[in-house]
Amino acid sequence: MPIEHEVRLRVRYAETDQMGIVYHANYLVWMEMGRVELCRSAGLRYRDLETSASILLTVAEASCRYLSPARYDDEVVVRTSILQASPRLVRFGYEMECAESGRKLATGSTTHVFCGADLKPCKLPAKYWEAFGITRQP
Amino acid sequence: MPIEHEVRLRVRYAETDQMGIVYHANYLVWMEMGRVELCRSAGLRYRDLETSASILLTVAEASCRYLSPARYDDEVVVRTSILQASPRLVRFGYEMECAESGRKLATGSTTHVFCGADLKPCKLPAKYWEAFGITRQP
Amino acid sequence: MPIEHEVRLRVRYAETDQMGIVYHANYLVWMEMGRVELCRSAGLRYRDLETSASILLTVAEASCRYLSPARYDDEVVVRTSILQASPRLVRFGYEMECAESGRKLATGSTTHVFCGADLKPCKLPAKYWEAFGITRQP
Amino acid sequence: MPIEHEVRLRVRYAETDQMGIVYHANYLVWMEMGRVELCRSAGLRYRDLETSASILLTVAEASCRYLSPARYDDEVVVRTSILQASPRLVRFGYEMECAESGRKLATGSTTHVFCGADLKPCKLPAKYWEAFGITRQP
Repeated sequence: MPIEHEVRLRVRYAETDQMGIVYHANYLVWMEMGRVELCRSAGLRYRDLETSASILLTVAEASCRYLSPARYDDEVVVRTSILQASPRLVRFGYEMECAESGRKLATGSTTHVFCGADLKPCKLPAKYWEAFGITRQP
Repeated sequence: MPIEHEVRLRVRYAETDQMGIVYHANYLVWMEMGRVELCRSAGLRYRDLETSASILLTVAEASCRYLSPARYDDEVVVRTSILQASPRLVRFGYEMECAESGRKLATGSTTHVFCGADLKPCKLPAKYWEAFGITRQP
Repeated sequence: MPIEHEVRLRVRYAETDQMGIVYHANYLVWMEMGRVELCRSAGLRYRDLETSASILLTVAEASCRYLSPARYDDEVVVRTSILQASPRLVRFGYEMECAESGRKLATGSTTHVFCGADLKPCKLPAKYWEAFGITRQP
Repeated sequence: MPIEHEVRLRVRYAETDQMGIVYHANYLVWMEMGRVELCRSAGLRYRDLETSASILLTVAEASCRYLSPARYDDEVVVRTSILQASPRLVRFGYEMECAESGRKLATGSTTHVFCGADLKPCKLPAKYWEAFGITRQP
């Protein structure tokens, strides 16, 4: 069963720039909202992972292809899926589109390394594997 | 001797919004730059205050009056002064202007409470008083 | 009939800082969300005001009192009301609290001047008065 | 002659997150500072390109590999180069490191399409070619 999730957000004025469109770095923030809600839908509150298990998802890589500009007050759909997961790292894929028109806005991906509170890589405890769709240790 | 300091910054594209001017919340970030550099000029690296002494300057109040808009690529002067200081709290005042034209952009102030790592109010250790111009306990 | 509105948002990781709480400038962004949704609930899409009528709500003043820190993943309620309105300016008041606990997070206000596309002050066309609760020209 | 440029910046408190390190989306803002200053060093003020020639550099693609975390108050060096340029698009490469220690922080790239004020792709006027190192139309 593929792990996928959809979240909606409204473009804030603060997110636009003087080109009259959304500043490109903000798409990375939207991706963050996508993966947090995907985790929540899989029964894992990312906040608890940090506080209870002291596991951090540090970002190792992020990329985004911008297809058409998002504008102020647009409702945006962020569709997030898990592309790859192991007890060491997880990779998310994202598709963003305009809710009203269905126009594709951007696609992207982020790769994360599970780290301890000291920001050193660690192995994700087995009890969290299911939420990321990890079935066995690779 | 009044404690005052001046710092310059270049407006980033990311800081503009679709009005073609700087988004108003960013002035609060510039004020942060102002007070950090004022502290540095008084011999206090704010980072060390947090790491060595576990003292945080939480923000209790912030306000800004916007006089004329800052624009992309403007060089902005932030003039910071200490309006009031005690071992419990410190209040900074700010004047922002366009470096090239001298045009006034904004004035503002922030009030900060000294807190411990638990975010509970505490008393600033005496060795840091001088940097904030505190001469005796009020 | 008082014009008031309530909007909810989820604190983003991007909005926190290394104190482990929400960076104070972000409350101004939340206030923006509050007044935009208040306008929408009164039948006025702020985007249309800009595009159709070329009216901008420039920010003349903003202030915020921080009562207790908001944290990552908190759901925040922003309660917005119109404190004062005339065809020249409008002043909004805000109360922010934690949805789950009801804990007060912050109060604030912003004052806006109606401007034309040239950012010069102008008079709000009468057809928009009702949305801001303006009954007659002061 | 390769077009390269180096710019330095100080990490702002606003740029950190609760992991105690710089939030990953901010590296894209630093890249923006890098390319703007590279253009300036080549005699081209990006602001003038927008205002005088109505040419916008829209972002078509952005990626970043995070090697080690930047922290609050670090001085960061952003080294920017032009990887590829034609009258239709330009691709910048970035290397970011800690000024004090020389520690590599991140590498990245962004691809931009020259667009008119209507955000439609256009051809960069020949008088701007030199600044981007374009010698003949490919």
